[in-house]
Amino acid sequence: MNTEFVIQSSEAESMAQSLNLPSVIHLLPHLVQSAQSLARPSISNFHVAAVGLGSDGRVFIGVNLEFPGVPLHHSVHAEQFLLTNLAVNNCPRLLYLAVSAAPCGHCRQFFQELRHSSSLQILITNPDQKVNFDFNPLSQILPNPFGPHDLLDQEHPLLLEEHNNGLDLLPYNDDHNHDLNKLGNGYCKKYDFDETLLKNSALEAANNSHSPYSGCPSGIALMDCEGKVYKGSYVESAAYNPSLGPVQAALVAYVAGGGGGYERIVAVVLVEKEESKVRQEDTARLLLKAVSPKCEFRVYFCDSIENGSLKIAG
Amino acid sequence: MNTEFVIQSSEAESMAQSLNLPSVIHLLPHLVQSAQSLARPSISNFHVAAVGLGSDGRVFIGVNLEFPGVPLHHSVHAEQFLLTNLAVNNCPRLLYLAVSAAPCGHCRQFFQELRHSSSLQILITNPDQKVNFDFNPLSQILPNPFGPHDLLDQEHPLLLEEHNNGLDLLPYNDDHNHDLNKLGNGYCKKYDFDETLLKNSALEAANNSHSPYSGCPSGIALMDCEGKVYKGSYVESAAYNPSLGPVQAALVAYVAGGGGGYERIVAVVLVEKEESKVRQEDTARLLLKAVSPKCEFRVYFCDSIENGSLKIAG
Ligand SMILES: [Zn+2]
Ligand SMILES: [Zn+2]
Repeated sequence: MNTEFVIQSSEAESMAQSLNLPSVIHLLPHLVQSAQSLARPSISNFHVAAVGLGSDGRVFIGVNLEFPGVPLHHSVHAEQFLLTNLAVNNCPRLLYLAVSAAPCGHCRQFFQELRHSSSLQILITNPDQKVNFDFNPLSQILPNPFGPHDLLDQEHPLLLEEHNNGLDLLPYNDDHNHDLNKLGNGYCKKYDFDETLLKNSALEAANNSHSPYSGCPSGIALMDCEGKVYKGSYVESAAYNPSLGPVQAALVAYVAGGGGGYERIVAVVLVEKEESKVRQEDTARLLLKAVSPKCEFRVYFCDSIENGSLKIAG
Repeated sequence: MNTEFVIQSSEAESMAQSLNLPSVIHLLPHLVQSAQSLARPSISNFHVAAVGLGSDGRVFIGVNLEFPGVPLHHSVHAEQFLLTNLAVNNCPRLLYLAVSAAPCGHCRQFFQELRHSSSLQILITNPDQKVNFDFNPLSQILPNPFGPHDLLDQEHPLLLEEHNNGLDLLPYNDDHNHDLNKLGNGYCKKYDFDETLLKNSALEAANNSHSPYSGCPSGIALMDCEGKVYKGSYVESAAYNPSLGPVQAALVAYVAGGGGGYERIVAVVLVEKEESKVRQEDTARLLLKAVSPKCEFRVYFCDSIENGSLKIAG
């Protein structure tokens, strides 16, 4: 069983060769079934895996994540996990993917955030038959799409492209955070975590956030009980609802990075703009309460450097 | 300008005749532009309208709703509004719809919850051209879909079909609700609202909830300052994320019912199961805090009557 979420290109080529496959593209559907065991579908028990080939030759795995106790829109689909996994690992483009079930409309829409989305090649594996080799472009399963082209300039960076939102942290308002910090019960204070590291990591994630539609970027950094840090950037969809929250993105980085059970998450920092139309804070707290109720949660505000002088928070 | 969200069949026929149109189907695209002014897109300022023909000859309007201050997944798309409007008005089937922009993947997926979804006829109006008359089936813009057929028995009621989840209220636990009731600040206590009416309305909405995938039905009843009650049933999608929360469904009923500004909502009751994998309570509070921060919010628990003896809440 494959237990890695990123397969290096040389390794992928060796695997293809050892299976007598003509290319790594042909390898993708072969990896789907074993990858399904990595899914965490705690509500549906419906295991989905998506295996993708990046433009740099690496193979990426995506699986679905579900979170009991909160509404279903918090769920992360395998295809969203896959794209976030590419983002976390700085792969600039997804070329091919094989997936264990027909992508839902929500995921087809999420794929629209990619440059050249219409030519993304997708294969749906059929569990009842032998592995097929029938890749079709996204445009075939989502014709006449609504997408970034309806709302953004051609030059605007899309998902997986380099973003720099030009954000910096506002001065820390201790009063505000004392008030917010309702999740923590001192459980993880013993870890004496490096808050500066977490804060700067979350700022970095916010600077990479793809949020051109609302102009409200955000980022999450979370730390496990061994001190390892995982980052997640908020990703918007032109269609709004398929947007992926920053906690979800960070949980993808956590799962893909071998982070284990969610209860091992001990500290979480969110960076977002204070006065903005889209605020993640309350929803982040709600989801964290469901997945890792004992973790420490802090919020720091940021603003655009281009704005000149930074406002004082509070 | 048309300011109604439901047009009676006789009225729709008169309108078609006065415009020299051969049928009410041809009327739908003509109503899209005026309906767009009814949208409430407070974030995007992107006005979308969907105008649909029900199997009983009535014409229904849907528009998009956005809620500043919370994540974008709270948004209601025009197509979701439209289907909820049919549900609120007990129309059993949507046959045709005209919409002002290409439906996003999330909405194409939401439409999958309808019986005979593949034959639903959709026309996308083009603002730059004259009204066209090019209806195409949903299956053409969402081929090879993932949907209820992948997860449910053929006999299971789908969206707009009659549901009865067999729920009844658990004994009221006052302690619990005192703790929950953090939204209210006494503002609406002067209205001395009929809590029994609201509670029973929310239970009715929960009994109509389409939630076959999680088995966690829920319903909302909200009251405006004139004492008028609006109900919303939680609707699940086979693909999970496009599910529509009970607050959103109730807000659709409110807007479509002429409810005016959200600040006129003074009391809200949620009915859901206490021990369930999908809980709406925290998210409902979060959204209500954003749209009508002074309203009173109460939660009552229910359980299936089939379970025999009802558990005591708490
Ligand atoms: Zn999906
Ligand atoms: Zn939509």
